[in-house]
Amino acid sequence: MERTKFILDEKDMPTHWYNIQADLPKPLPPVMHPATGKPITPDDLAPLFPMELIKQEVSTERWIEIPEEVREIYQLWRPTTLFRARRLEKALDTPAKIFYKYEGSSPPGSHKPNTAVAQAYYNKQEGIKRITTETGAGQWGSALSFGCGTFGIECKVYMVAISYHQKPYRRVMMETWGGKCVPSPSPDTKVGREMLAKWPDCPGSLGLAISEAVEDAVSRDDTHYALGSVLNHVLLHQTVIGLEAKQLMEMADVYPDIIVGCIGGGSNFAGLYLPFVKDKIEGKKPNLRIINVEPTSCPTLTKGPYAYDFGDSAGLTPLMKMYTLGHDFIPPPVHAGGLRYHGMAPIICHLYNLGLVEARAEHQLATFEAGITFARTEGIISAPEPNHAIKVVIDEALKCKESGESKTILLAHSGHGHVDMAAYDAYLSGKLSDYAYPKEKVDEALASLPKMPQA
Amino acid sequence: MERTKFILDEKDMPTHWYNIQADLPKPLPPVMHPATGKPITPDDLAPLFPMELIKQEVSTERWIEIPEEVREIYQLWRPTTLFRARRLEKALDTPAKIFYKYEGSSPPGSHKPNTAVAQAYYNKQEGIKRITTETGAGQWGSALSFGCGTFGIECKVYMVAISYHQKPYRRVMMETWGGKCVPSPSPDTKVGREMLAKWPDCPGSLGLAISEAVEDAVSRDDTHYALGSVLNHVLLHQTVIGLEAKQLMEMADVYPDIIVGCIGGGSNFAGLYLPFVKDKIEGKKPNLRIINVEPTSCPTLTKGPYAYDFGDSAGLTPLMKMYTLGHDFIPPPVHAGGLRYHGMAPIICHLYNLGLVEARAEHQLATFEAGITFARTEGIISAPEPNHAIKVVIDEALKCKESGESKTILLAHSGHGHVDMAAYDAYLSGKLSDYAYPKEKVDEALASLPKMPQA
Repeated sequence: MERTKFILDEKDMPTHWYNIQADLPKPLPPVMHPATGKPITPDDLAPLFPMELIKQEVSTERWIEIPEEVREIYQLWRPTTLFRARRLEKALDTPAKIFYKYEGSSPPGSHKPNTAVAQAYYNKQEGIKRITTETGAGQWGSALSFGCGTFGIECKVYMVAISYHQKPYRRVMMETWGGKCVPSPSPDTKVGREMLAKWPDCPGSLGLAISEAVEDAVSRDDTHYALGSVLNHVLLHQTVIGLEAKQLMEMADVYPDIIVGCIGGGSNFAGLYLPFVKDKIEGKKPNLRIINVEPTSCPTLTKGPYAYDFGDSAGLTPLMKMYTLGHDFIPPPVHAGGLRYHGMAPIICHLYNLGLVEARAEHQLATFEAGITFARTEGIISAPEPNHAIKVVIDEALKCKESGESKTILLAHSGHGHVDMAAYDAYLSGKLSDYAYPKEKVDEALASLPKMPQA
Repeated sequence: MERTKFILDEKDMPTHWYNIQADLPKPLPPVMHPATGKPITPDDLAPLFPMELIKQEVSTERWIEIPEEVREIYQLWRPTTLFRARRLEKALDTPAKIFYKYEGSSPPGSHKPNTAVAQAYYNKQEGIKRITTETGAGQWGSALSFGCGTFGIECKVYMVAISYHQKPYRRVMMETWGGKCVPSPSPDTKVGREMLAKWPDCPGSLGLAISEAVEDAVSRDDTHYALGSVLNHVLLHQTVIGLEAKQLMEMADVYPDIIVGCIGGGSNFAGLYLPFVKDKIEGKKPNLRIINVEPTSCPTLTKGPYAYDFGDSAGLTPLMKMYTLGHDFIPPPVHAGGLRYHGMAPIICHLYNLGLVEARAEHQLATFEAGITFARTEGIISAPEPNHAIKVVIDEALKCKESGESKTILLAHSGHGHVDMAAYDAYLSGKLSDYAYPKEKVDEALASLPKMPQA
């Protein structure tokens, strides 16, 4: 029998996260304060985040130790497995070698707890008793509930009302781990109460949920706020994926020619590829290709300009330089899965701008078709998000079949789709369609870019 | 950091299943033909099952080779991990060592594919193109769809209509793997059409779904029928769990004092413990305790008599000697999870009758409470079924705390609850209650026992 799985021993699990800021050929553009137009200071962020995370946000130290208490929680599911997708290779009849690093074995079923656990830990260290956040479909809210639960911190999740009512499973997961989840708008905040007075049946939005979570956090001394993607410290925590993957690829005696992953805020895929980008920056692997895959219905890297924008749709956050569709951007209703963020992690945008990574947009129907092929060969039913990357992996493997090249492809598989079966149902019953966000509409959306020097 | 996980290398995965029939101190009572009152013959079963499975059903060969093609599919998720539940131990402040063998990492999320894949393989070998089965909540139907898909066999699942409509996620899983799932009663069979004519909105029952699946299978030469638990060959295939567990416990340098698992039809738990029962039969481990845990609302071993009964509620199958609540038995509506079978795997019943294993019944609310404790310590949200076993593990660990004994407890963890969050929701919102099936009602249900010599 041929080997299909590569697994690290627990004692070989990474002890440090990798900080790409130590190795960037040019530093990241600063994050700006919207009122002053000047770079933000740690004090600006202190009401929301613990100082350790604020330090990580701007640190240029190459290796940052993973606290032992965090590694002990990671141990519940880490290190995660590197799979060789032999049955997919056979079905495609390709000479390509396809590997995937699978993050679906975590309790909430995705990569998200890698940072949720770390954020809960640093908040706990600073004496924080309670963390608030927002969630759309519930993936991040459930991961943070899990993470907070492991350190005995209260977790309050403002979940977009329409998702709260339509997708109760994620809410129940949060409650099972001890978190509290309310539909947003809620009567628990001023902004929520005002909205409910005007519009009692308001379906909510991510922007509104952020406003509620932030208002809640700043109004109480014992409470902080947490973000599940985009920020530098979030990507830092996710590098545990890539560090494990590097060790495991070595164990498999290969190095990737192409790395593929899906991007919404970007933390999962960057978590996998940042340790490999290091090799590229250092000139060791000049031909390594890294393909960021996004939906055609939210084409941030492939269609958006590189500009300063708010991180949230409510316009509450500092300004970050990102490829962005404008913070007013809302993906079209036909779009079934995640990957709906208007911007992109500044680190990814910077690397893309420097030409170190590529981007590609994929249509929805083809991504589900790819997901079905994956399920019928490798078994795993993937979340709609990684299906975007699977589509590109299949394309690249079929190119190898044509050219006869035996390339090594590494897929960042962010998690399973057990709680996303409604999207599969919609696909299998012909209720989904494609939508490519047209350039004109992107230009329109960009009207929401903040009026400030777009240096 | 302390070790929490024990994992076999792929090349050390078992190559043979263990057949307890080689080592039983007394042979199993024969399976009887209801019409003749005589033991059934292989020919009686040939319209439903491939000859290799019929042979396994009665084989007394100790080790039966796992075909390489089956092991290649097992490799998608096997060997599975043995966890040390250190955070649960700490939360209970117990000197007990708690281990669990976790089967939730399979694509359908339970132990069921261990036999689904094997059954699909043997059917394929015999030239069968199509397999039918019934399913209640959908766990078995999804596992068989996955198993059939891996060998390119069509799978047709008759799913109890009310579950089909209330729990669409499992149906969508089946379709994702290429299976076909219809609500039962369906217009696809004579028995289904007759029922629909009488009662168009009939919610269906497992008995009716079995009748449809069997009628479909016997009416076509290219089609067989498959069962997901109870039968000897099903338990045989599940011994891969216990064989791995034995190797891993050795690796952890321990041997269990107590093994705990939940039983419905019994295949998951027997799969874990049969290789350990061998040690007990051989006198090597006389003090090993094996506790079968069932719900008080379906108390087969703890309340039922040991008698010949039909395997299905429709009275179509041969008669098996089992502890049984009568094949007309239906668990009360308050019961939220699986473990609803009126009888029990004949192998388990025989071992229980011989005094080699124990049984205990647990109330529903306490099992969910235990499941919440497990989720908040070990992370995994368990299916309602293994929560029954977790309740007993916690009880035994707390007894160790009182007595100061450091016993080793091994839990058979059959799978996750990602598709069972509605049951957690009902529990967390106070909508579940307890129900102990009273002895009088059991006596009443036993009126359905077939009229034949109960030798």
